[in-house]
Amino acid sequence: MTITDVARHAQVSTTAVSKVVRNAYGVSEAMRVKVQAAIDELGYRPHHAARAMRGRTFTIGVLLPHIRNPFFADILDGLTEEISASGYQAIMVQSGGQDPAAERRAGDALVDRQVDGILWVAPCCAKAQLEQLARDTPTVVLGRHDRSAVYDCVLDDDEVGAELVVEHLIALGHRRIGHITQKDDLPGRAAALLQTIRARTYERVMTEHGLAAHIAVAATSYSEEGGYEGARQLLARDPRPTAIFAGADGAAFGALAAVHEAGLTVPGDVSVAGYDNARMSGLAHIALTSVDQDGAVMGKTAGRLLLERIDGRTSAVRFSVTPTLVTRRSTAPPSRS
Amino acid sequence: MTITDVARHAQVSTTAVSKVVRNAYGVSEAMRVKVQAAIDELGYRPHHAARAMRGRTFTIGVLLPHIRNPFFADILDGLTEEISASGYQAIMVQSGGQDPAAERRAGDALVDRQVDGILWVAPCCAKAQLEQLARDTPTVVLGRHDRSAVYDCVLDDDEVGAELVVEHLIALGHRRIGHITQKDDLPGRAAALLQTIRARTYERVMTEHGLAAHIAVAATSYSEEGGYEGARQLLARDPRPTAIFAGADGAAFGALAAVHEAGLTVPGDVSVAGYDNARMSGLAHIALTSVDQDGAVMGKTAGRLLLERIDGRTSAVRFSVTPTLVTRRSTAPPSRS
Repeated sequence: MTITDVARHAQVSTTAVSKVVRNAYGVSEAMRVKVQAAIDELGYRPHHAARAMRGRTFTIGVLLPHIRNPFFADILDGLTEEISASGYQAIMVQSGGQDPAAERRAGDALVDRQVDGILWVAPCCAKAQLEQLARDTPTVVLGRHDRSAVYDCVLDDDEVGAELVVEHLIALGHRRIGHITQKDDLPGRAAALLQTIRARTYERVMTEHGLAAHIAVAATSYSEEGGYEGARQLLARDPRPTAIFAGADGAAFGALAAVHEAGLTVPGDVSVAGYDNARMSGLAHIALTSVDQDGAVMGKTAGRLLLERIDGRTSAVRFSVTPTLVTRRSTAPPSRS
Repeated sequence: MTITDVARHAQVSTTAVSKVVRNAYGVSEAMRVKVQAAIDELGYRPHHAARAMRGRTFTIGVLLPHIRNPFFADILDGLTEEISASGYQAIMVQSGGQDPAAERRAGDALVDRQVDGILWVAPCCAKAQLEQLARDTPTVVLGRHDRSAVYDCVLDDDEVGAELVVEHLIALGHRRIGHITQKDDLPGRAAALLQTIRARTYERVMTEHGLAAHIAVAATSYSEEGGYEGARQLLARDPRPTAIFAGADGAAFGALAAVHEAGLTVPGDVSVAGYDNARMSGLAHIALTSVDQDGAVMGKTAGRLLLERIDGRTSAVRFSVTPTLVTRRSTAPPSRS
């Protein structure tokens, strides 16, 4: 089926049909309605037709650990903005984020759907698996610190970000600062994971300030549940920490709940800081100090890099965002009680 | 490529390969590692092979307005739990939720990817478009109140839910109760949309209690931004409402921020209630009164209905969840000042 069929059915010119399909200027509302009715009646699929002609599917596959992380929504918004101008659609699959076998099935599902490129957010599998995928499908990996010659990387400088938080808390006068990290059961490749870098940086900065004896890490997960459980572990210590650095905002939200439930106040009894600067963190009743790594820019950049690779670039690119600290009311000097 | 090739390469039996692929019991760790190494080296795709044999793609397409709504994550968890046991994978596309043309492109992208079934969450398009899709692809629509003979419906009894909230606030002693709804620019089919039903129920219950003069609706959107803006509009009224019923939890979070920013307290000055009982609403520092429609059960049911349709059922099913009210600290009697 072509626009000629639609034009005949609607009894208008092919130019008029083409204009309506492209959403071009200079089309009357009556014409638009008429053509759209013909398109609907015939079941004509203009985008599908264009795609089939050009030999692409015009889809970008996005592998996410989970859609529950609000930071991923920022990434997706940036990606969508960048690729939709070129007629691309993002399709997403949840990988679960903790199981390389599930991640592989999720990746396979995208490859089977013949996406033109893949954005893989925070993968937990081995680098070899990423490279195997990238040899067949243009790939951008977001949030991992491995270096590769076959895929592009978009990442946050997690060492800078974690250092900003810990230095901020120490400058406020905190000494007993606890950290909530994501437990990693995957042996042998932890060093490239952002949670490892944030946790090691926390330990390094504490040690540099002579606070090694106060290092306290709760290894749970970067989720609300993980932050809640991690904060409960840290608050059970005697003496308890006066500040908690959660490695992600989701975990920080859970930590805020745990502090509240323990009958303590934020920041009066415990300061809490997160990482990602999710939109929710800026809401006035939450006001969470956090690290901004600009997810929209990361997503937009990933989209641009994918389009470049689809158009033929084969050299690998590494794009790093330098994060900034956003201080809000959830952090303050420790009380002198 | 078959498991025979993998067995030969790994120098083990085909039975052993089959067990590893099926993740069956009684496989030693050494055997698992050996077979997996052969699978990786050969690039064998067990699931893909099984799919090709059975003539299905073993994917369910999910159309979501946006991944930023935390309630959708509950739905997706329920869906994934149900379909993964049958070897299915969910792939998602964001539709934007406010533009029928964008929604159509998103739906087309899923059809083009040859999904075996589609779960369409809170569509904004005409029923005719849903039925056109459903004639070709097994379809379940979640969150719309139209009745159809060609697709299944999973929905919340939004009239019951909204009534629970408004009756609760009136029973607490509130009279000036404002409502935040989602603005709908789509003419002619508003009655089937959940936001319309929630808003009309609010107006009906207010009127039944002789409070018609106090009806105040801010028509923004079911998002944090929409809730923030909507609450600012309501709080600018003189006298201002003593309670706000936001049609969705995301909007309620934004409303909480607006109340806080105006120097008012929750629930001292203004009670706030939401709808959806998103996980975040239960966190101790938020403690939002909300309506629970059990997203996980809705997602699980949608998955079951899709699998039934894929297996040949053609009669249409309608599954309605009766919601319950979860009262928390964000609602209380109005202060007598």
